[in-house]
Amino acid sequence: MSDQLYIGIDLGGTSIKVGICNEAGDLVAKFEVPTHAEEGPEKVADLMAAYSRVLVENTGLDWDKVAGVGAGIAGFMDLKNGIVKLGPNLKWYDVPIRDMLQQRLEKPVLIDNDANVAALGEAWAGAGKGIDNVVLFTLGTGVGGGIVMNGKVVTGQGSAGELGHINVVPDLEAIQCGCGQMGCVETVSSATGIVLMAQDAVQRGDKTTLALLEQISAKAVFDEARAGDEVANRIVQRAGYYLGRTLATVAVILNPQRFIIGGGVSRAGELLFAHVRENFAKYTPPAAQTNVDIVVATLGNDAGMIGAAGLHLQR
Amino acid sequence: MSDQLYIGIDLGGTSIKVGICNEAGDLVAKFEVPTHAEEGPEKVADLMAAYSRVLVENTGLDWDKVAGVGAGIAGFMDLKNGIVKLGPNLKWYDVPIRDMLQQRLEKPVLIDNDANVAALGEAWAGAGKGIDNVVLFTLGTGVGGGIVMNGKVVTGQGSAGELGHINVVPDLEAIQCGCGQMGCVETVSSATGIVLMAQDAVQRGDKTTLALLEQISAKAVFDEARAGDEVANRIVQRAGYYLGRTLATVAVILNPQRFIIGGGVSRAGELLFAHVRENFAKYTPPAAQTNVDIVVATLGNDAGMIGAAGLHLQR
Repeated sequence: MSDQLYIGIDLGGTSIKVGICNEAGDLVAKFEVPTHAEEGPEKVADLMAAYSRVLVENTGLDWDKVAGVGAGIAGFMDLKNGIVKLGPNLKWYDVPIRDMLQQRLEKPVLIDNDANVAALGEAWAGAGKGIDNVVLFTLGTGVGGGIVMNGKVVTGQGSAGELGHINVVPDLEAIQCGCGQMGCVETVSSATGIVLMAQDAVQRGDKTTLALLEQISAKAVFDEARAGDEVANRIVQRAGYYLGRTLATVAVILNPQRFIIGGGVSRAGELLFAHVRENFAKYTPPAAQTNVDIVVATLGNDAGMIGAAGLHLQR
Repeated sequence: MSDQLYIGIDLGGTSIKVGICNEAGDLVAKFEVPTHAEEGPEKVADLMAAYSRVLVENTGLDWDKVAGVGAGIAGFMDLKNGIVKLGPNLKWYDVPIRDMLQQRLEKPVLIDNDANVAALGEAWAGAGKGIDNVVLFTLGTGVGGGIVMNGKVVTGQGSAGELGHINVVPDLEAIQCGCGQMGCVETVSSATGIVLMAQDAVQRGDKTTLALLEQISAKAVFDEARAGDEVANRIVQRAGYYLGRTLATVAVILNPQRFIIGGGVSRAGELLFAHVRENFAKYTPPAAQTNVDIVVATLGNDAGMIGAAGLHLQR
């Protein structure tokens, strides 16, 4: 069994990340290419398979030592049948990606939600190392989530951990989410949500340095907030407020020991985290916030690959 | 190992229910006495122990065959140390009930939250029989919850499943919950919440047959609603609306296959359930409501005893 390799693929709307892990969870090699989701699932599966083989070859490793391939994919999954039921960023509907990859790679393939595998990666080898009950929020284009209880990913019927779709914004202030519902935390605490709030502020003529920017990114909103812009600060506060309240909801349901916040938006650091912590403390009953901390993810963009590879060691 | 017995105790604010189970989960005998919480934890523990022994004797069973005692208790728990951190209905703070019972009974004792054990009971031998991923809501004086994923109770650090304290009522309409937070589902969907809404309606002079009652119970509100009273119907609708939205939140987080609704309030049946189902369907993203049903608990008041006894077979 020793020196076997596992390939972990993190498939996002923007890029395909392919990594090779050993059994200890060390990332031996990695590679990133654009997804080209617009060319359809067959083409994307071709890319995933081709770059898995290329990476193993280029690293001078033996393809025969690859014991399995795991993939983390953004969307609602039918885990039992290895199907992406709905991948909003990829625009995938009922794509049997597990079998598609198995055919192309001739290796055992396991799939899970991208945020679930990121949670598993962080729990296994990152910010959750040694902790049994961990909940991860990934703040990127959307808000993903992953739940690890007693060291295992909680999947429910396959769609558990869709934490971005927790309803938290009151109806009267809510806007529609990509999932069709109103008021999901994803609409305010994702990069997309933050950019949208900033664009709205500029469009309605709020007095803000954001209006001077050619293009607004979530990072730009954090930069302007740090520079003292009040409107940008209010946007950051709103993103952190609703995320904090969302964590409060998850805490009373699951009582984890640690929340791990990852994804691009988490790079805002304490500027955002201070609001998250403040509102988590305020809106969580005492027993559900005792011995609970909120920390930043440590594996960065590698969490998904590592966790996807780790799917084979968990089951 | 065979023909061993397990005692399950369901400790509530009003009554202590003691049951004897065999290894198959059949309830061999049961007994119910008032809790007398006002006399303090030592006295309550005395009663729990005394009635456990009395029930075994009176049933003609052998005390030596009792392999363990389980207790489900309303409140926030420190499971590792067997302590009730906060039992609002019992007015208990930091009560080491596991050790207190172990001393009195000289048997292994396991404790858990009352709603967790009810969920385990229902999942093991009731409405969740044969289903791996089940979430139970117990609508009684408060709203309790229990989560069973992959056939195991999810405890987190010990306080998981406090589903009554999910924040669901918007701030502007929220009232304070016993837990100190505002807007918990318990404030609207528990018997207490329903009675409070009815009393408020009467006090502010709403035109309702509820005003003619000497004392208002949750059952009375359901009876008047069935008889066509509009105010009572609006109260039932509100209780069902927020419970449905709470289920929606739990569904995106845990994606269970079945929600089981138990407790006294669940006896309202379809009058309440229709609103729960309607709003669950409306506020849950499609993937999280596929293959999910909402059913009434079948073990009634026995679920807690059976699940408490079952704690010994689960771990």
